[in-house]
Amino acid sequence: MYNLLKGKRGIIFGALDENSIAWKTAERVHEEGGVFVLSNAPASIRMGSIDALGKKTGAQIIAADATSVADLENLVDQAMDILGGKIDFVLHSIGMSINVRKGNHYTNQNYEYTEKGWNISAVSFHKVMQVLYKKDAMNEWGSIVALSYMAAQRVFPDYNDMADNKAYLESIARSFGYFFGRDKKVRVNTISQSPTATKAGQGVKGFDGFIAFADKMAPLGNASAVDCANYTVSMFSDLTKMVTLQNLLHDGGFSNMGVSQEVMEMFE
Amino acid sequence: MYNLLKGKRGIIFGALDENSIAWKTAERVHEEGGVFVLSNAPASIRMGSIDALGKKTGAQIIAADATSVADLENLVDQAMDILGGKIDFVLHSIGMSINVRKGNHYTNQNYEYTEKGWNISAVSFHKVMQVLYKKDAMNEWGSIVALSYMAAQRVFPDYNDMADNKAYLESIARSFGYFFGRDKKVRVNTISQSPTATKAGQGVKGFDGFIAFADKMAPLGNASAVDCANYTVSMFSDLTKMVTLQNLLHDGGFSNMGVSQEVMEMFE
Amino acid sequence: MYNLLKGKRGIIFGALDENSIAWKTAERVHEEGGVFVLSNAPASIRMGSIDALGKKTGAQIIAADATSVADLENLVDQAMDILGGKIDFVLHSIGMSINVRKGNHYTNQNYEYTEKGWNISAVSFHKVMQVLYKKDAMNEWGSIVALSYMAAQRVFPDYNDMADNKAYLESIARSFGYFFGRDKKVRVNTISQSPTATKAGQGVKGFDGFIAFADKMAPLGNASAVDCANYTVSMFSDLTKMVTLQNLLHDGGFSNMGVSQEVMEMFE
Amino acid sequence: MYNLLKGKRGIIFGALDENSIAWKTAERVHEEGGVFVLSNAPASIRMGSIDALGKKTGAQIIAADATSVADLENLVDQAMDILGGKIDFVLHSIGMSINVRKGNHYTNQNYEYTEKGWNISAVSFHKVMQVLYKKDAMNEWGSIVALSYMAAQRVFPDYNDMADNKAYLESIARSFGYFFGRDKKVRVNTISQSPTATKAGQGVKGFDGFIAFADKMAPLGNASAVDCANYTVSMFSDLTKMVTLQNLLHDGGFSNMGVSQEVMEMFE
Repeated sequence: MYNLLKGKRGIIFGALDENSIAWKTAERVHEEGGVFVLSNAPASIRMGSIDALGKKTGAQIIAADATSVADLENLVDQAMDILGGKIDFVLHSIGMSINVRKGNHYTNQNYEYTEKGWNISAVSFHKVMQVLYKKDAMNEWGSIVALSYMAAQRVFPDYNDMADNKAYLESIARSFGYFFGRDKKVRVNTISQSPTATKAGQGVKGFDGFIAFADKMAPLGNASAVDCANYTVSMFSDLTKMVTLQNLLHDGGFSNMGVSQEVMEMFE
Repeated sequence: MYNLLKGKRGIIFGALDENSIAWKTAERVHEEGGVFVLSNAPASIRMGSIDALGKKTGAQIIAADATSVADLENLVDQAMDILGGKIDFVLHSIGMSINVRKGNHYTNQNYEYTEKGWNISAVSFHKVMQVLYKKDAMNEWGSIVALSYMAAQRVFPDYNDMADNKAYLESIARSFGYFFGRDKKVRVNTISQSPTATKAGQGVKGFDGFIAFADKMAPLGNASAVDCANYTVSMFSDLTKMVTLQNLLHDGGFSNMGVSQEVMEMFE
Repeated sequence: MYNLLKGKRGIIFGALDENSIAWKTAERVHEEGGVFVLSNAPASIRMGSIDALGKKTGAQIIAADATSVADLENLVDQAMDILGGKIDFVLHSIGMSINVRKGNHYTNQNYEYTEKGWNISAVSFHKVMQVLYKKDAMNEWGSIVALSYMAAQRVFPDYNDMADNKAYLESIARSFGYFFGRDKKVRVNTISQSPTATKAGQGVKGFDGFIAFADKMAPLGNASAVDCANYTVSMFSDLTKMVTLQNLLHDGGFSNMGVSQEVMEMFE
Repeated sequence: MYNLLKGKRGIIFGALDENSIAWKTAERVHEEGGVFVLSNAPASIRMGSIDALGKKTGAQIIAADATSVADLENLVDQAMDILGGKIDFVLHSIGMSINVRKGNHYTNQNYEYTEKGWNISAVSFHKVMQVLYKKDAMNEWGSIVALSYMAAQRVFPDYNDMADNKAYLESIARSFGYFFGRDKKVRVNTISQSPTATKAGQGVKGFDGFIAFADKMAPLGNASAVDCANYTVSMFSDLTKMVTLQNLLHDGGFSNMGVSQEVMEMFE
């Protein structure tokens, strides 16, 4: 609507279905004039409906296992080819805990699952950036965003080992962000989003109770997937060039609440 | 350039001369289609060149002592009159330490000066919001921003009692932001900006050394006044509706640096 | 019980009655071999039962209005006289909001009250330190602690302007702590304590609901006044010599909880 | 010296030689009346001089690879046998980055090394706690501490992937600390220590420059290994029962400094 991303090229990871934050982001980026390729794991491409999104936004879909450096190298090469130049923006919206899927409690982890979940949810972000950095594939003042969650800072019991993965992910944003900023003028940030009723979110036990709690705590209520897409657009735009190494809370104010009136009254 | 603020009305406090962050913000808001009134203290209006800014941006100038509730009430009434409706955005860029001006060290404060500086730099933000809130003068999804500085979290020796004032200011943003969000759907945030060579900044002893240090630490270097104006525009826009109660670091990455290569090498 | 504070001299502000954290601290410091004077405002001395505490701990009581530099100068002189040397530890447990007392909502403050509450609750800490610093009244490796509350970081609606006062107080700890550390090897910290059923706490509206909520969120439950006294003893001891400029959360884990199982289940 | 840990039993991981923080901690715990077993990896036992420490403190040494759940199970069983009861305190001082050892830059990681370093430095802490939790091997009000470093929050360029490992480690402390607190009344914290000239620290490139920088920034200078041992003793004692889920900065004030006078003057 504003042409905020006109002339910008990008890669968007993690759109599964129309509830996905990455899906909404792709739609909004398209509206703002940005062009991009979509990427997801082969299984997620089969399971979801990303083809429809590709058609709607004029984007090609490139399958890539984000834990495979070779796949990511191929993806980045193809993306530059297809889009006709270096990359301006990247959205990393990838996460999965095998321990959660298998129903293992946090105090009863299977460490092979722990390693797999960490590799998919956190290390993949490093791999994406290492490939982009080595190939010198980002334009100056480009913007890289990964989606995170406040469990990186505070305990949400059912979030399980994803909390630790998000802490690692946010640390990668800072660590790699330093080198990407200093050497290539690229900014790297994470957006810490309200609990959102996506496919991934719904896998978490007790998710409904939690989403209601967060909504009652936040003065503006929970931020939706579309709100998040809008915020990400602002982070991809030239309006935020000097914001880097940050974890940006996008949550209707939840993160800075000790307690709301409404919640407290339940305890009186 | 993007029409991001078309149809939005606001009040911008604190434009003194063309180095002011508030000045640059007014220019950028004007470019984005927003309309506003400018306000400053009578003495600052005489000392600075705000008339030129008013002409350039088509904005009327309303003198107000931001420590005077009566002045603020008059300002808000006039602003709604002039702009033809309720307010969508407010920039609070007001601060002064009398102890700094008079050369009193932090360990040798004159507490009358401490009180005056606190009243001007911090309480004025509460007063602005209390007047807006009581008059129900803000539109839903309006955005209120105050400029802050990282001395609110960490020690910068020469920043003196302004550090404590900024801590109080940021706390007001959270405390009032809760009620403004819950009751009126208005968001309230502070932007914590790189050290900037404004009139106010230059008053701080050792400012040149400090600005050089910050620039060498931050992977992207210091953010300029124009960068800050751009960021503030994004915070006034509809792209960031669910961001509230936050202190937003806008500093080229400085805040999350422990040490940069360049700084460390000076110690080897 | 451990002789942790043998040979140490101090000043303890703010013991009113036997529920006061300062009262419990005085008892524990006495048990650990520390000697001290007790101080409070004349009105608080009349209203409370500090004489009994003085007898029990062998401490003299010196009235001082903590907003009066002259009173504080007299107090520090007398304390060194009575105790026979420079000071090793100080507890600042002083706070009051006139707006809370008068029932003014945070969005409807009387700014004279705001100023008074700020002066009593926050600036008094600066005054205490400025007097100690100018008189060179602290021994090297001495320890200064002020009690704070997490409302300095997050919103607790009924905590009112005390939230902003605590933010200012914590900022003073950092700002003054830098100079006190560098110049005199004295450490300065705040302890951010669980809500506690003291006289001061009970004045806050909805306090019972809040204390129950905090207790259900914290994995270890709320910390008691005695727990806080124990923690303060550790901060006065030589075991914590290199901890300074910190805000130390003492709250059974509350501060790092997003939500507990027990709280979440109420929303399912 | 104070009998603070009389009657308490523990496990101390990671003492290599007399520069180790774990070594100093073992000595101080012994002086305070605590009994414990020492554990380290077989290779570290061969390389270091832990036998001498065992003799000095009357502690048995049990080899365990902290990435092996079987080894840890054996260790905990033996420790309870040897010490005659459940465990009261645990120190986790374990960390190594293979990427650092091999000289791989952060932007050029070998992901097999990344995984190994993460497993040793971070997941080992989860494994230790999962074994203790499942065996119900901790006494109520026991205390578990892991050593961390501020690179978990801010960028120190040469700290490499250890920064991300420490972020993960600190997240484990919160995540597991919730369950350990709620279910067993055990507290879990990390201590974020000044850069220290241990064997591990010395492996980091540019360590001397960095240690000098930190010393000039911190108002009290860098905390030593002995200071850290003292602080850990306070965290194992009954004085700090209600402190949990925290990352405790032990750094002479470094973490809350923006810049010191001394550092700033180098840039003027």
